[in-house]
Amino acid sequence: MVGSSVDVEVFSGELNGNDARFPEEFDPAAVVLEALPQVVQNGEEKKSREIVLGRNVHRMCLAVTEPDADDEVTGDREAYMASVLARYRKSLIERTKHHLGYPYNLDFDYGALAQLQRFSINNLGDPFIESNYGVHSRQFEVGVLDWFARLWELEKNEYWGYITNCGTEGNLHGILVGREVFPDGVMYASQESHYSVFKAARMYRMECIKVDTLISGEIDCADFKAKLFLNKDKPAIINVNIGTTVKGAVDDLDLVIQTLEETGFTKEQFYIHCDGALFGLMMPFVKRAPKVTFKKPIGSVSVSGHKFVGCPMPCGVQITRLEHINALSRNVEYLASRDATIMGSRNGHAPIFLWYTLNRKGYRGFQKEVQKCLRNAHYLKDCLRAAGIGAMLNELSSTVVFERPQDEDFVRRWQLACQGNISHVVVMPNITIEKLNKFLNELVKKRSIWFKDGKVQPPCIAADIGKENCGCALHL
Amino acid sequence: MVGSSVDVEVFSGELNGNDARFPEEFDPAAVVLEALPQVVQNGEEKKSREIVLGRNVHRMCLAVTEPDADDEVTGDREAYMASVLARYRKSLIERTKHHLGYPYNLDFDYGALAQLQRFSINNLGDPFIESNYGVHSRQFEVGVLDWFARLWELEKNEYWGYITNCGTEGNLHGILVGREVFPDGVMYASQESHYSVFKAARMYRMECIKVDTLISGEIDCADFKAKLFLNKDKPAIINVNIGTTVKGAVDDLDLVIQTLEETGFTKEQFYIHCDGALFGLMMPFVKRAPKVTFKKPIGSVSVSGHKFVGCPMPCGVQITRLEHINALSRNVEYLASRDATIMGSRNGHAPIFLWYTLNRKGYRGFQKEVQKCLRNAHYLKDCLRAAGIGAMLNELSSTVVFERPQDEDFVRRWQLACQGNISHVVVMPNITIEKLNKFLNELVKKRSIWFKDGKVQPPCIAADIGKENCGCALHL
Repeated sequence: MVGSSVDVEVFSGELNGNDARFPEEFDPAAVVLEALPQVVQNGEEKKSREIVLGRNVHRMCLAVTEPDADDEVTGDREAYMASVLARYRKSLIERTKHHLGYPYNLDFDYGALAQLQRFSINNLGDPFIESNYGVHSRQFEVGVLDWFARLWELEKNEYWGYITNCGTEGNLHGILVGREVFPDGVMYASQESHYSVFKAARMYRMECIKVDTLISGEIDCADFKAKLFLNKDKPAIINVNIGTTVKGAVDDLDLVIQTLEETGFTKEQFYIHCDGALFGLMMPFVKRAPKVTFKKPIGSVSVSGHKFVGCPMPCGVQITRLEHINALSRNVEYLASRDATIMGSRNGHAPIFLWYTLNRKGYRGFQKEVQKCLRNAHYLKDCLRAAGIGAMLNELSSTVVFERPQDEDFVRRWQLACQGNISHVVVMPNITIEKLNKFLNELVKKRSIWFKDGKVQPPCIAADIGKENCGCALHL
Repeated sequence: MVGSSVDVEVFSGELNGNDARFPEEFDPAAVVLEALPQVVQNGEEKKSREIVLGRNVHRMCLAVTEPDADDEVTGDREAYMASVLARYRKSLIERTKHHLGYPYNLDFDYGALAQLQRFSINNLGDPFIESNYGVHSRQFEVGVLDWFARLWELEKNEYWGYITNCGTEGNLHGILVGREVFPDGVMYASQESHYSVFKAARMYRMECIKVDTLISGEIDCADFKAKLFLNKDKPAIINVNIGTTVKGAVDDLDLVIQTLEETGFTKEQFYIHCDGALFGLMMPFVKRAPKVTFKKPIGSVSVSGHKFVGCPMPCGVQITRLEHINALSRNVEYLASRDATIMGSRNGHAPIFLWYTLNRKGYRGFQKEVQKCLRNAHYLKDCLRAAGIGAMLNELSSTVVFERPQDEDFVRRWQLACQGNISHVVVMPNITIEKLNKFLNELVKKRSIWFKDGKVQPPCIAADIGKENCGCALHL
């Protein structure tokens, strides 16, 4: 092999690690993504599972192997790959069916768009600045952006935005804009904010102050006020959660603004980024929900596209005020960067998926789905409570928080996201009453086994969801 | 509409702006992505086109419209969308056919993977840390990462990496790792580095020094040495280009390391990130090419997946030393972030596309394609020169640099990337001799029109590509 530095022989193994590990066959010892503090259980400390970063564990791996010289003749390679893909597809069907814990709408049909997969669609750089690369989808992207700008009440000639790769990119962008507006600003975010917010602060070398939360998961504005007061001399950059990750709690935007004003911050001294990952797209359709709108003094809003809308791959929408991007563009260094996005090359398929769903469902379609989700979430919460299981549902949310199941196999089977003693189900449009009933029946049956001899008792989760919602022996 | 703040009526317009603008119908007045300094032409200054960031120009937009109540009955909506998509698809076919300027391999067939589009595949967080979300493709991702770690000679238990959203994310990650290793490090990058490198420095608040380049586009190590010397007291973080964007110039990694050593920097005082966007995957197959390998004191390598491999959407691969990620993970703040990637949610389809191509083509397949690209690039350069057109081709590259065509319609038709007086064609596996001949014939014919009466003459591009390569009246 001319110039190749790697011996072909090293690629001879077909499958590494524990054979062909597909998603349904999770290793029970696998490290779970969620950070798990110590679980206190009837006075005993259950062994905690830690996340260990900086590991490179080959639990499952489909190794790339060098084709044999005669593969094209024999067709062996094609046959092997087809069989891997067929098994993988089967596992995805099963995993999609048993999924409750992540806020992803898995119910979509983009069959009409399959014809576009053969194109390398790339929206290089700014959606509003033409590139010479012709295989793009800016016309769809700008249509989607206009829709969101209208949703959040910002005029067409007053907004700027783009379709991101995920909610994190929206947060990274919003916070960066905030920092560029206020280079010496101090960032404030409630401790239940998404971890990307704290990652951004570290990346950008910003001072970051964590604010306490209420039991509901909302930002505690009394604590916010006290902390603002201590840093009155510096501008404030605030991350407001339009739905926290774990409890689906919506920070009270109006109260946040009021708190800023009461502490003496004028509109020229703060920048608010709204992390609307999931709920930014649900709240406009919820009665009595406080409005997220650019008519209030906010700087940016981001939302995920693969969550409530549903999409084959992660994506998101970021909308900010054009004046802020104008300010960036006057900066010579930014001009050199040629675009104000975080990423340069951008997935051109994502805007088409979003455009397709927005066009098909429209406002009325989303409204119906939001109502269905909230109704089903209430149903789940009521059933859990009726079965004596501690559970909480925030008023504006479809995230049902409840006691963490005792059995990790059960957690993995239903793909529940857990944190400490609590777990949650995010009721998305693809979660039907039928699926919830199946889950409830299994949970109740399992609990009767876990707790049958009274040695193990349901954990107290009053500290997480309030004693009125707790189902432990003390609070029931 | 309950809770909805936006009037449905505003969504009544079907197409905004200049009707339904599809990629093939570029507005000639459209702002071009590339920064265009003033073009000096026979002593006259041609009006320069600037990039203006912070604009929100609705040149083309397919507005999202609210469905009519009876759309489901009439099928009008479906019919409308099908017609938009059919026209869009047709334009993509045309645009894909006439594409020469961007380093994207548009020749791929992922038909076998179309069955996976209905799943929301998300590789949340670290590829090596399990998530409870079951609809993922980590087993493919780790297989691909192993392949690249072997290509760049880093042991399986010594590397860490992940599949990124694009080359920019690889650079953002590599430079962030460098900064975390050396918090007070000074960044050095040649002025022909990709703009994402300078964007990273600004985002991360790092001191950044631009180093001069040679005519070829390579980093000028004499200038590098002088600048290193002025900052001897601070660690160095260096971006090394394994193929610059415009000229495809490969920085001499060995000379960069030698320069560092000569200036007194030990291995504990510098971090090298290799931006291998396009050429990181081609160079291993080029005879006499200096090797990019972790056996040399480098910290990270990134490469794009949608470039030489070809992929429907942008993606990339980032490989770094596990020890660096270990260092990050000992940092409490990073632990709180739960993963060491830049993005949290990650496109789970991209690893499958890469896995599929790597398995099908293998080293031998890539080798053949690289040879074909280099051969065709030489053919193009030779033909240009034979036609009296100034052109340059770096030895290790398939990027042919030549005089910028006078006519913007021609530039757009062939989707050439331009900078100042020069333009380039990146010869990718989908660029055949037949396509090059068609392009050459058109160019020669057009030139005979542009330059027919002698009033306008071909620009001198000696400053860009050297006088021996220039085709102007003075240097021909």
